[in-house]
Amino acid sequence: MPLNKQILLVSRPQGEATVDNFRLVETQTPALADGQVLVRHHYLSLDPYMRGRMNDSKSYAAPQPLNEVMIGGTVGQVVDSRHPRYAPGDWVVGMGGWQQYSVVDAEQPGLLRKVDVSRVPPSHYLGAVGMPGVTAWYGLVKIIDPKPGQTVTVSAASGAVGSAVGVLAKQRGCRVVGIAGGPDKCAYVRDELGFDDCIDYREHRDLGALARALKAACPNGIDGHFENVGGTVLDAVMLRANAFSRVALCGMIAGYDGQPLPMLNPSLILINRMRIEGFIVSEHMEVWPQALAELGELVGSGRFRPRETVAHGIESAPEAFLGLLKGRNFGKQLVKLVD
Amino acid sequence: MPLNKQILLVSRPQGEATVDNFRLVETQTPALADGQVLVRHHYLSLDPYMRGRMNDSKSYAAPQPLNEVMIGGTVGQVVDSRHPRYAPGDWVVGMGGWQQYSVVDAEQPGLLRKVDVSRVPPSHYLGAVGMPGVTAWYGLVKIIDPKPGQTVTVSAASGAVGSAVGVLAKQRGCRVVGIAGGPDKCAYVRDELGFDDCIDYREHRDLGALARALKAACPNGIDGHFENVGGTVLDAVMLRANAFSRVALCGMIAGYDGQPLPMLNPSLILINRMRIEGFIVSEHMEVWPQALAELGELVGSGRFRPRETVAHGIESAPEAFLGLLKGRNFGKQLVKLVD
Repeated sequence: MPLNKQILLVSRPQGEATVDNFRLVETQTPALADGQVLVRHHYLSLDPYMRGRMNDSKSYAAPQPLNEVMIGGTVGQVVDSRHPRYAPGDWVVGMGGWQQYSVVDAEQPGLLRKVDVSRVPPSHYLGAVGMPGVTAWYGLVKIIDPKPGQTVTVSAASGAVGSAVGVLAKQRGCRVVGIAGGPDKCAYVRDELGFDDCIDYREHRDLGALARALKAACPNGIDGHFENVGGTVLDAVMLRANAFSRVALCGMIAGYDGQPLPMLNPSLILINRMRIEGFIVSEHMEVWPQALAELGELVGSGRFRPRETVAHGIESAPEAFLGLLKGRNFGKQLVKLVD
Repeated sequence: MPLNKQILLVSRPQGEATVDNFRLVETQTPALADGQVLVRHHYLSLDPYMRGRMNDSKSYAAPQPLNEVMIGGTVGQVVDSRHPRYAPGDWVVGMGGWQQYSVVDAEQPGLLRKVDVSRVPPSHYLGAVGMPGVTAWYGLVKIIDPKPGQTVTVSAASGAVGSAVGVLAKQRGCRVVGIAGGPDKCAYVRDELGFDDCIDYREHRDLGALARALKAACPNGIDGHFENVGGTVLDAVMLRANAFSRVALCGMIAGYDGQPLPMLNPSLILINRMRIEGFIVSEHMEVWPQALAELGELVGSGRFRPRETVAHGIESAPEAFLGLLKGRNFGKQLVKLVD
């Protein structure tokens, strides 16, 4: 059996996460039992939710245990199988974690999913045609539920989730305005993803400036907003929100000191008769087939070309993850594990 | 035609509203045109929403114009009619305003509604079997949508809206916990309205204390919350909110300086996968018949005995209204105009 490089979480962050919270180890992959398959990971997905798991605090998911392999989505190929439905060479998506190989009980439902890489490159099953894409789909379709001609905004618009929100909203005939950090990301959002406009929040640092930029970009107000960030962005959106507008709450950052950022004026929820709803995509597995079908078609046909930032080698995962938290990635952040 | 005492709004509040914002005038009621009826108001309703109308700022409703009769719900009797469907002696509910008489175009839909005072005393058509009751019904039934056994909390629980929320939630098999100010109101909420418990927020002034009191009163967490107040109450409820809990946002107060009170930790909306929804009952006229039927039955059968605070004479309306804003009323605040 092959050697397996793994990244463990060995301590919890005090404030900002650092590379010292992680440790690289090397182990032997175990021999397969009946029903198990050995998967060689080609790509590891890095996602913002992982930061929450590093804490030992109440959230919707249990914390990542210390001294175990960091959780994470992976796409790879079966290299050995003792399960009748899987054969060497099969491409599979799963939660293999921050490591080069994983041994999976293929009988357990939901742990492995075979994917077709003939039209969709494997890495996209971790992004636009995977969890981030379905996250976008659920929040947009099930919470915002936009009508043609309505205006939809999305923060972190160049990211894996935000880009899919915009493309899906354009498919539904909406005016779509992104919010992203820096001119390169905004140009990508407008020119390559096809958003109607994109606001560079770095050019509009305070609430008033951001609200004015939103007013200019959304002359008919905002009917739906997909929130990946929170804080000032959400406060500004609420100032431009139309009556009966909907906010899908997918991600919220904390302030610099780790304290939660307040919502400045919640009475706008009443004044604008808004609906604000938080969700976790893994609690809505019933939508995955429909969502993945639409997303796969968009990517497979080339109408949606998701951007990726790729780090190389499992050793680079902690540094790449910390960069993701600082917004240094551009599109979906991956780690390529097979050269 | 009779003389008519009226209260006008003559200036907008700078900070706190005062009696100087109002002026009493006396006018002659005009002669009736075809299709009009003259209504003598027996009761005027005083409601928190009126404070918002006194401002000249963006909200869901236009501001109250200066030097015109303050808007307000009224119940009274037709004393003269030039409309075939209304006869002297008919009891009618309408938006007659802060005055003793009103002349109404009875042909315009929605301005007048005949009511049956044989089982329900007329004043309750301004409270439990009127707009406040339907407000409670909509937020509870259409937004919170509680299941039997779930826990529902409501702030301003002894008030016209809050008391109806609790009674309706008990009808639906919920555990119901009120939040009110002072031992008398809490005793009424528990002993007369039949809530399972009531928290005196004056005994739990800060967020931590209020959250602990909620934890004790809601051992299974909070599944639905009806918010009439906002601020610390809402922050505390969010700390005890269950996964997939719903908040119906009906009223929000501002801080002492007139600035909006922030929501301290909006990331709890995501962590608890909450849905928070603001609403205005007048935008949901389709539910009124169903809601009024249930509320009328509860009041008519004596299972719901709403408390009223009654001021006497139109001259007392400004002072009574300012008392309502300070929570000095106990239950529905009315002004009795006919002795």
